[in-house]
Amino acid sequence: MVLMTPEELTASLHQAIPIVAAMGIRVVEARPGYAEAEMPFEPNRNHFGAAYAGSLYTVAELLGGQIVRASLDLDGELAGFVPLLKSSSIRYLLPARGPVRARAAMAAEEIERIRVDGLEHGKANYDLDAEILAEDGTVLAVTSGAYQLRRF
Amino acid sequence: MVLMTPEELTASLHQAIPIVAAMGIRVVEARPGYAEAEMPFEPNRNHFGAAYAGSLYTVAELLGGQIVRASLDLDGELAGFVPLLKSSSIRYLLPARGPVRARAAMAAEEIERIRVDGLEHGKANYDLDAEILAEDGTVLAVTSGAYQLRRF
Repeated sequence: MVLMTPEELTASLHQAIPIVAAMGIRVVEARPGYAEAEMPFEPNRNHFGAAYAGSLYTVAELLGGQIVRASLDLDGELAGFVPLLKSSSIRYLLPARGPVRARAAMAAEEIERIRVDGLEHGKANYDLDAEILAEDGTVLAVTSGAYQLRRF
Repeated sequence: MVLMTPEELTASLHQAIPIVAAMGIRVVEARPGYAEAEMPFEPNRNHFGAAYAGSLYTVAELLGGQIVRASLDLDGELAGFVPLLKSSSIRYLLPARGPVRARAAMAAEEIERIRVDGLEHGKANYDLDAEILAEDGTVLAVTSGAYQLRRF
């Protein structure tokens, strides 16, 4: 299994979802069981001096796809599988006054379950929590998504 | 109380949140107790031929602010008050294969409660459900947000 680098994941993400490229969001860390993305303050700032709620949602939401791409071989064994978001929730704790990063982790056993379920049933549901952090590490928002890795 | 037209609300929204302007989202109907916004397929399309989850979230989320702007006098009696999103959830039911609209309604009694709570306490919490529809009226996603109208 050849893993994609954060730069490759970012390029692929920008090609797949142009509006995410417009937000300037980049994948900065990605390895089996872990994904992290960064979002600049501009052009996501609102005129109240905070990052816009919809952009914050986006930088966390997309980790559900990126962590699977960083953990499973979607170009090999699981070729043709695509991660989808089924439902999601976000809780905003503090306004974001600058660039943020979002991060999420997934246990090795959960990755293996998704792989096996996917191969056996053509789809596998999984949940993922993420947190959005300020540059100083303060947690600004928390999210929880229900995803499905599905063969198309 | 002078109500803003959908065109004025759109212009104000685009000025306040540039990334929403980049998505091409417009307020198309706004009156006390009702708000509706439209979102074009481009540039919100992903390369799987569906509207991106984060853009769908956005077109519904922003109704929480627009419905209050269309229902209460934020330039007069409630000048200085700003609607904020505290938490939100979305459930995706069907992929969006073209332009969508999102709509939300609020009862007159609830508007009055928000007005009175705001004036009395300097803030008022309110919940708002919205739905996202395809051009043929099919419900594609449903959202539920917890907002606060707050004096700054």
